[in-house]
Amino acid sequence: MDGVAVKRNINLEDNNPSISESLELDSVTLVLFGSTGDLAKRKVFPALYNLFLDGKIPDSFSVIGLGRREWSNNVFQTHVKESLTTFSRRLPTDHSKMERFIQAFQYSTLDVNNDKEYEKLLEMIRKNEEELNIPENRLFYLSVAPQLFDAITMNIKKSGLSSTKGWKRLIIEKPFGEDLKSAQQLNKKLSVAFEEDEIYRIDHYLGKSMIQNLEALKFANPVIKALWNNQHIANVQITASETVGIENRADFYEQSGAIRDMVQNHMLQMLMMTAVHLPKHNSVKSIRKEKRKIMESLQAFQIEEINSHVVRGQYDSGEILGESVVGYTEEQEVDETSKTDTFFAARVQIEDPFWSGVPFYIRTGKRMKEKSTRIVIEFKKPLKCAYIAQREELSPNILIIEVSPNEGVFFQLNSRNPLKGGEIEPIIVEFSTSQKEIPEAYELLLFDALQGDQTFFAHWSELELSWKWIQPILEAFKEDILPLHLYPSGSTGPKAADQLLEKDGFTWW
Amino acid sequence: MDGVAVKRNINLEDNNPSISESLELDSVTLVLFGSTGDLAKRKVFPALYNLFLDGKIPDSFSVIGLGRREWSNNVFQTHVKESLTTFSRRLPTDHSKMERFIQAFQYSTLDVNNDKEYEKLLEMIRKNEEELNIPENRLFYLSVAPQLFDAITMNIKKSGLSSTKGWKRLIIEKPFGEDLKSAQQLNKKLSVAFEEDEIYRIDHYLGKSMIQNLEALKFANPVIKALWNNQHIANVQITASETVGIENRADFYEQSGAIRDMVQNHMLQMLMMTAVHLPKHNSVKSIRKEKRKIMESLQAFQIEEINSHVVRGQYDSGEILGESVVGYTEEQEVDETSKTDTFFAARVQIEDPFWSGVPFYIRTGKRMKEKSTRIVIEFKKPLKCAYIAQREELSPNILIIEVSPNEGVFFQLNSRNPLKGGEIEPIIVEFSTSQKEIPEAYELLLFDALQGDQTFFAHWSELELSWKWIQPILEAFKEDILPLHLYPSGSTGPKAADQLLEKDGFTWW
Repeated sequence: MDGVAVKRNINLEDNNPSISESLELDSVTLVLFGSTGDLAKRKVFPALYNLFLDGKIPDSFSVIGLGRREWSNNVFQTHVKESLTTFSRRLPTDHSKMERFIQAFQYSTLDVNNDKEYEKLLEMIRKNEEELNIPENRLFYLSVAPQLFDAITMNIKKSGLSSTKGWKRLIIEKPFGEDLKSAQQLNKKLSVAFEEDEIYRIDHYLGKSMIQNLEALKFANPVIKALWNNQHIANVQITASETVGIENRADFYEQSGAIRDMVQNHMLQMLMMTAVHLPKHNSVKSIRKEKRKIMESLQAFQIEEINSHVVRGQYDSGEILGESVVGYTEEQEVDETSKTDTFFAARVQIEDPFWSGVPFYIRTGKRMKEKSTRIVIEFKKPLKCAYIAQREELSPNILIIEVSPNEGVFFQLNSRNPLKGGEIEPIIVEFSTSQKEIPEAYELLLFDALQGDQTFFAHWSELELSWKWIQPILEAFKEDILPLHLYPSGSTGPKAADQLLEKDGFTWW
Repeated sequence: MDGVAVKRNINLEDNNPSISESLELDSVTLVLFGSTGDLAKRKVFPALYNLFLDGKIPDSFSVIGLGRREWSNNVFQTHVKESLTTFSRRLPTDHSKMERFIQAFQYSTLDVNNDKEYEKLLEMIRKNEEELNIPENRLFYLSVAPQLFDAITMNIKKSGLSSTKGWKRLIIEKPFGEDLKSAQQLNKKLSVAFEEDEIYRIDHYLGKSMIQNLEALKFANPVIKALWNNQHIANVQITASETVGIENRADFYEQSGAIRDMVQNHMLQMLMMTAVHLPKHNSVKSIRKEKRKIMESLQAFQIEEINSHVVRGQYDSGEILGESVVGYTEEQEVDETSKTDTFFAARVQIEDPFWSGVPFYIRTGKRMKEKSTRIVIEFKKPLKCAYIAQREELSPNILIIEVSPNEGVFFQLNSRNPLKGGEIEPIIVEFSTSQKEIPEAYELLLFDALQGDQTFFAHWSELELSWKWIQPILEAFKEDILPLHLYPSGSTGPKAADQLLEKDGFTWW
């Protein structure tokens, strides 16, 4: 640590003062474990910087970066600057602004297993709090491997770091367990030092603005509200497809597969956010309760049913954007007999009166044709009537909520085509926004954590229910009860995933 | 008339044969009164040419142009060519195609009051029919002033032109009367020679493809169908605004005003098309019956009610697209004390259970801020609920059907704006097509007339009911019971038209 005392808080006076004033964010010290790591560099620093530009961090805000490396404050600050220049959606063009921002960052080396070093950390934080004359509000961010959660939370507790006169909050990242049991154990460890309402579990899909927009689309639009029922909705399709393969993460992916990497967390969270019945009272507690109800109503699979509801796939060689790519088992450090799933599709049913008769289809995969996350609401087909005398069947109306990489709301309607003698054809009615303008998931989520708003973080019970639902599928995968469908890289996945819908008379959009 | 016999029918063999074959259009002779006039040049010839390009006219098709001028076939054909080069949406680039098209045109001088000349005309048509070996199908198009209708129909009857072994049809243009009585008299004259189901009254607004699309939007889209009722619709707004003034038509406009020029025909037709309840059977007869029902249900105004439901306006001087323009009474050949209406707005109610509680607002005006014809369906506002904690009231959802100059379907929905802390704001979800590609109203209408489809033509009973509804307003205008509101050119019309909606808690979109 540098010996020089610097005023490390950021003066926001000439930087959207109206926003920070009206927000009245509490002064806080962000204690960032794993501050030399990849996530901090790619996501956390840029997100904080963009919040700073928007006047959305507290007037008194300081970051204490922690890591094993022996870095000085200077080295750390240079590292943060580099991160902004490389990864921020708005590049730092105003030098003096960036300097002001960077002054908030200090660094301290920490061996997470050495309890003595936590005492030193506490001293450092206290000194900083006194210097700045701010309350003991501490936001602990664990941007580290989950194996370290245990030691860190134990030591936070033991050292007195968590015995603060202000508030304390904990932000953690996935993966949150690898099955039901390990997730439960992990949660137990966290609860030594933090209450549930102090824990902010990041699922960055919940930070995507279109996912956060779902509830507004439903309650603020009488036209959507009127259609939002099983008399009008035929099915719901949630897709998250990627074009990339496993990149250099064979080690991780072999343990995880699509089911742990995407389904247990992101896909089920998107399903909950889509299906949730908005409570009368707009409180975090009541929304979470309703999300929980969706998970509780989700049809649980018996082992013998899984084959007819779930499709497991793995990418074979193929072409992505005109370039040849190898199959999964040919990837470096992947066993050539590996049966790891890189694709997952399922037909699920929410067993409540509201969604009765409306199947939900979810699918996710790597090395797919396009990179796209979207939620599609397919409405029931037009009834046959005297007006529909044309050869081809009318398309159903669909509502598409494009989550990423672009964001948008689309309606597919039917319309007469005057160029084809009035033949009725689908048209797309669309709204989309430029991706550049939109705050990144981490900005929205970190801002919420600063505000103490848990709405878009995963509650433990959601996680536990997700793992409970996933558990039999994990076992079926492990026991190899399910076929593993190979699909060519650059395709839309295995045919079996299409057949999942064809049985019900539908197709993927 | 030229003495040379030419094969005047058009061989469509290498010109989209599939379309014309599948359509099986009857061979026909088009007898065009007023063929040297402005409408023929601007609309009729270009429409026929574009139908020809699309293979949508019969294989054996010939046009006999009539007029007072002493023209030869050659002069007439050159005149038609010039019309295409100037006014066709697709310019004639293929010379041989245009020559083939032009061969279908012959000219004959005709004094409409001279019965002898009709006999000569009959002879000419018969000769043509024999030469081409086609049935006696005759389409009479009266592109002339309505004062001539009487003489022409009388002579058509007397000469035997209408005693054909094939079918006969009559196309006529507005104006169709100047009040209820004159319209009834006019209709009586037509019926001397033609039955109602032989008469095609052109209202070119009915030829606009978005107006023709209205029924498809309603029946082919379950999402719109579900919203199409008075539980969801708050009001309907139909606007047809122009930026032009009266141009050189003071004589005509002083007699007509907006009420006769726009309201009695176009505005009421758009209202009928929007409000009509689609019958179970898709037949011309049943649709017309339903349109009639709408007119019959339209709340009739007593003289004393008119002031609170109707706004009469006249443009004052102002600015259009940055240029100063004079007020209506300063226009050439307009009396400076003229009280002619150039703007009309009304709040009307369709008194049937379906539309109960849903006001319809119509407005039309010259010298307005923008050129736009559109139908707006405003849905009821979102109910106040716990989710709407923001300062500004939420906008209602609206469906906008843009009729001209552009065509499109727009939805205005509410969405969270991630740039404004999730504030809910309206977004526009839109579909629009390029105007160039879309067939003109006259193409669609002439094609329907060739096919014998009367769906998008005005039935006499619709006209009669329109005049009946308009009559008390005409009288109120004449007796000057209503104030005449001046509005600046380039504005959105008189304030009184806004107040018409404000009373109900609405605004114009």
